[in-house]
Amino acid sequence: MTDVATNMRLKLPIICFILEIILIILFGVLVQYNEETDAKEWHKKNHSDYENDFYYRYPSFQDVHVMIFIGFGFLMTFLQRYGFSSVGFNFLIAAFSLQWATLMQGFFHGMHGGKIHIGVESMINADFCTGSVLISFGAVLGKTSPVQLLVMALFEVTLFAVNEFILLTLLGTRDAGGSMTIHTFGAYFGLMVTRILYRPNLDKSKHRNSSVYHSDLFAMIGTIYLWMFWPSFNSAITAHGDDQHRTAMNTYYSLAACTLSTYGMSALTAHDGKLDMVHIQNAALAGGVAAGTAGEMMLTPYGSMIVGFLAGIISVLGFKYLSPILEEKLKIQDTCGVHNLHGMPGILGAIVGAVTAAVATADVYGDGMKDVFPDVASGKVDASYQGGIQAASLAVTLGIALLGGLIVGFILKLPVFGAPSDTICYEDNIYWEVKCFSQSREGQLNICIYTFVYR
Amino acid sequence: MTDVATNMRLKLPIICFILEIILIILFGVLVQYNEETDAKEWHKKNHSDYENDFYYRYPSFQDVHVMIFIGFGFLMTFLQRYGFSSVGFNFLIAAFSLQWATLMQGFFHGMHGGKIHIGVESMINADFCTGSVLISFGAVLGKTSPVQLLVMALFEVTLFAVNEFILLTLLGTRDAGGSMTIHTFGAYFGLMVTRILYRPNLDKSKHRNSSVYHSDLFAMIGTIYLWMFWPSFNSAITAHGDDQHRTAMNTYYSLAACTLSTYGMSALTAHDGKLDMVHIQNAALAGGVAAGTAGEMMLTPYGSMIVGFLAGIISVLGFKYLSPILEEKLKIQDTCGVHNLHGMPGILGAIVGAVTAAVATADVYGDGMKDVFPDVASGKVDASYQGGIQAASLAVTLGIALLGGLIVGFILKLPVFGAPSDTICYEDNIYWEVKCFSQSREGQLNICIYTFVYR
Amino acid sequence: MTDVATNMRLKLPIICFILEIILIILFGVLVQYNEETDAKEWHKKNHSDYENDFYYRYPSFQDVHVMIFIGFGFLMTFLQRYGFSSVGFNFLIAAFSLQWATLMQGFFHGMHGGKIHIGVESMINADFCTGSVLISFGAVLGKTSPVQLLVMALFEVTLFAVNEFILLTLLGTRDAGGSMTIHTFGAYFGLMVTRILYRPNLDKSKHRNSSVYHSDLFAMIGTIYLWMFWPSFNSAITAHGDDQHRTAMNTYYSLAACTLSTYGMSALTAHDGKLDMVHIQNAALAGGVAAGTAGEMMLTPYGSMIVGFLAGIISVLGFKYLSPILEEKLKIQDTCGVHNLHGMPGILGAIVGAVTAAVATADVYGDGMKDVFPDVASGKVDASYQGGIQAASLAVTLGIALLGGLIVGFILKLPVFGAPSDTICYEDNIYWEVKCFSQSREGQLNICIYTFVYR
Repeated sequence: MTDVATNMRLKLPIICFILEIILIILFGVLVQYNEETDAKEWHKKNHSDYENDFYYRYPSFQDVHVMIFIGFGFLMTFLQRYGFSSVGFNFLIAAFSLQWATLMQGFFHGMHGGKIHIGVESMINADFCTGSVLISFGAVLGKTSPVQLLVMALFEVTLFAVNEFILLTLLGTRDAGGSMTIHTFGAYFGLMVTRILYRPNLDKSKHRNSSVYHSDLFAMIGTIYLWMFWPSFNSAITAHGDDQHRTAMNTYYSLAACTLSTYGMSALTAHDGKLDMVHIQNAALAGGVAAGTAGEMMLTPYGSMIVGFLAGIISVLGFKYLSPILEEKLKIQDTCGVHNLHGMPGILGAIVGAVTAAVATADVYGDGMKDVFPDVASGKVDASYQGGIQAASLAVTLGIALLGGLIVGFILKLPVFGAPSDTICYEDNIYWEVKCFSQSREGQLNICIYTFVYR
Repeated sequence: MTDVATNMRLKLPIICFILEIILIILFGVLVQYNEETDAKEWHKKNHSDYENDFYYRYPSFQDVHVMIFIGFGFLMTFLQRYGFSSVGFNFLIAAFSLQWATLMQGFFHGMHGGKIHIGVESMINADFCTGSVLISFGAVLGKTSPVQLLVMALFEVTLFAVNEFILLTLLGTRDAGGSMTIHTFGAYFGLMVTRILYRPNLDKSKHRNSSVYHSDLFAMIGTIYLWMFWPSFNSAITAHGDDQHRTAMNTYYSLAACTLSTYGMSALTAHDGKLDMVHIQNAALAGGVAAGTAGEMMLTPYGSMIVGFLAGIISVLGFKYLSPILEEKLKIQDTCGVHNLHGMPGILGAIVGAVTAAVATADVYGDGMKDVFPDVASGKVDASYQGGIQAASLAVTLGIALLGGLIVGFILKLPVFGAPSDTICYEDNIYWEVKCFSQSREGQLNICIYTFVYR
Repeated sequence: MTDVATNMRLKLPIICFILEIILIILFGVLVQYNEETDAKEWHKKNHSDYENDFYYRYPSFQDVHVMIFIGFGFLMTFLQRYGFSSVGFNFLIAAFSLQWATLMQGFFHGMHGGKIHIGVESMINADFCTGSVLISFGAVLGKTSPVQLLVMALFEVTLFAVNEFILLTLLGTRDAGGSMTIHTFGAYFGLMVTRILYRPNLDKSKHRNSSVYHSDLFAMIGTIYLWMFWPSFNSAITAHGDDQHRTAMNTYYSLAACTLSTYGMSALTAHDGKLDMVHIQNAALAGGVAAGTAGEMMLTPYGSMIVGFLAGIISVLGFKYLSPILEEKLKIQDTCGVHNLHGMPGILGAIVGAVTAAVATADVYGDGMKDVFPDVASGKVDASYQGGIQAASLAVTLGIALLGGLIVGFILKLPVFGAPSDTICYEDNIYWEVKCFSQSREGQLNICIYTFVYR
């Protein structure tokens, strides 16, 4: 089943080794321990151990890490014979992206005297950026080679860092959980890439573009981990104290409400009133996406629940009615439906964030204003202006994502990257050794039997 | 395979939407951020960031959260074709229960000036209450519709909060890990419900009430997560400092000892000296249940190990000899054997707690007495009286659980909730879209083939 | 399929019960709460709650715990019909080992006035020692009875504690993440045991010594958890503050680099340029092993990446070219390839640690020197001497591991432990009840069909 075009014998080693060697050289030249990870620097000052940011953020970091590698990785194993690639390519491009993101993000907002200083917060930010790449991966899942994915990650991480710099540093946008910077950006970038990579004959692989019983159970591992740890995701880099605490709690209630509306909508819209695993696996997470910007704000618990409730409804409707239209009319083949899980809920989250910012008052935030809206607290802008900045940031994000995806999509079309042909998409056997327990023939097919034989 | 009775097209959306809208309204009226999650309140006082309870409890919360959603969810996937429902209904009723529990528990012991104040500790308590509902779910697994389960959760959470209020607030009972409030309550409530819902013709679905090879492996994911994080569960809401530390350690050793006795007993009692997955998946956890009350006390490490050792023995014997009797004689069809994992070990834990409390001395506890037994430390009661209170609390819990289960069982018998008929229990296909890879006929059956085909 | 020899009806209960009862007695006589878990002792001094070591180390402990029970357990489920045993025996011997390790390690370096004092740090150390046993388990996987494994664990834990005592206490070796004490020791001990237990006719079970599609996905759960939490593993018992922080970060980058070199090498060496799951599941972790000793040192981020990069290359080459030679020439049947994942990368880690120690300067470490190299900071030795100690420690570890494995291997050869015969290795059905969904005959075989039937 392997032909020359998709053979990775040389292509993958070459790109892996070149990228990693470049990373090592750049890290050697540019990257240093920050004050909290450097033995000498940390001990210069008279700290208590527990003031080290490690103790504030490392548990959150590990939860985020689980979302990136288990959450995203297993969520995409729903395809019947693309499990190795889902988990395995997720693993590969995440391992690359987090290193590259350290450099790119450090270049834009972590330079100290010509050096990039790193610690647990930069690790979280690198994982965040990686998450955005994995969202785009979801849009092109099954239709791309690992080399294409690494090339995509290379460019996407760079553009992510540019967009993040414009929003967080230049504009002063607040987006702790990344409704805009992570979800909206990753979704629309990926959607544009998959649009450019449109395959008119993809229906030749259609029989593989669905789940089987146990692949859906593996995917639920990913779903549940994403759902459980989303409060950690949204709160991982907010200010210490009440901010982390409040953000985690807002997200917790948003997700709970989202789950109920997802189940309700799934039964309402699906065949015979039966629940559809695609909805449960994806839409139930939209509440986390939608609480990404406003989660750190004084959104109130019931406000969070309203946001989650709406996100679930929008997301299920998207899967049911919008995705088929996008595919037929706009030629956007979105394998995982990232538009429904990350795209629309990300936009919702950005809007909720803008509104919540615009109505912020000193009466509600008190001295906590400086943590949530530093520019408002310092008098640099007023709350409604901050709201306007938030809204403008959404437009900027969409623009950079779509333009970036357009360019990167055309780069990925170059015929040298070993993409699979239309007849063998969604198939592990192209890029992985796949073992069968035993084989038999049934009609025209060789069947790889997946059973256990006991004598 | 779907008939009108079990069709969820309207029933499930209606209950999900009504419940969530009620929750949002009640949260809007009643719930506020507490002092540690409110931007203004937290910044009014001169705190250090690390004094925020978030840093003491959030890692424990996340471990508990994993137990609730992954632990309980996957533990129940052992059934061959009920994996979607096990994880999926677990997800749904947990997402509802944690919101409802926030209100009910807040109403009974979190009111401040007419408002319910919430933060990480209330989130843990809400997850705990949810755990109790999921235990009951285990007893009725495979025989109930999602609507029935939501109705059950609605009532059970309420009764849980009443029982918890009587024990912890009125009586001054100590039960940090919930041997009584969570495990005994959830188990006997669920057992009574399943007794009322007795199905004389359930043997028509008997062929589906067992595991297959990989469903047992999925279930082991649940088991291992429950086992690993039980130290966090029991210590999640104990006092800060030595109390959390000691509770986690006691539970760790109790579980380790329990595992050895479980393996020994399983080989001793099972067929041909072979180990039985049902025992390993369940009885090995009994040590965590049994250390739920006394875990925070000065139980000593070897005391914890004795408790765990006994719990494992009791639990395996229950699965082997007691469960068949309960089913045949008492008509209690306990799908997951919650009586053996949560019922008897919960009672054991309550008794161990009562004895350990009764023998507490100032010589052993020193100034730490005020954290573990505040009423003893303040002189309000003496240790033996505290032991008596603990014992009485077990009786109260059993009474409320059984009476509550009786009433709720009859409510669930109403024919409007879409329960499956006796011939299609333990079957995902009733409530879920289930895809087959391919179909063939074998004798009288259409076989949904679960294989991978490679051309 | 069960014969008298492998029947566990009496053997397993007897050893489980005897071991646990001995453990309980020894804990009763020897073990006490330490100052941070004892109610009275903790409250004697005027501590802040957050000074309790629980808050510094418990999140790391739980990550390590997940690695031991989920990571190692599921990593070994790659075999097609040995999943119950992989997870289940892993569970059993880990639960025993952590108790026994508490005693052995406490005896060698935790005695206070004739008593062993325990807390979260001893729990982490017990889990570490358990990890070493599980590495050895990987070498003999599929070829040993649970009784053999418990006997192996009994001796190995003891020898581990001896080696650890010689290194850490007598020699003053630094090895926070255990490149030597855990990985090198566990690997070479296990390799020697499997050499002594050499089975010339093992090819009779060869058809079972491979994976099937979903068993490889289960194994990836183990891989990913090990990969994600390795930063916690290496940093779990380093000094508080910058040391934990730096160690976690070094390990993070080492693993990321290792993943890229693993994918590159796998495509380069495997059939048709396709990736081999065995490499991905194992070699991508070698970066964590290799950063075990030097991770806490000022290795620098790019230094960590170089180490990880090399570890991945070495490990894949080992799987591809060295393992077949070891099996054919040296008669070492290494089921999981622990030589490639733990053996060679462990040695690499020891060498990196020795070199990094030898070049340590006060200019780089400042006042942090006392945490990383206390003997150098105190002037007891100079840095190059510390490097020499590190190198000597590797030799000591190899010597004790190989000699210990030799002796224990011969003990395990005693014919009383119920080892499986050569024809039924790698087979769950020997020691576990295995259920089939349905059975049919195909040629000479009874096939246990693993499908879902829908009428």
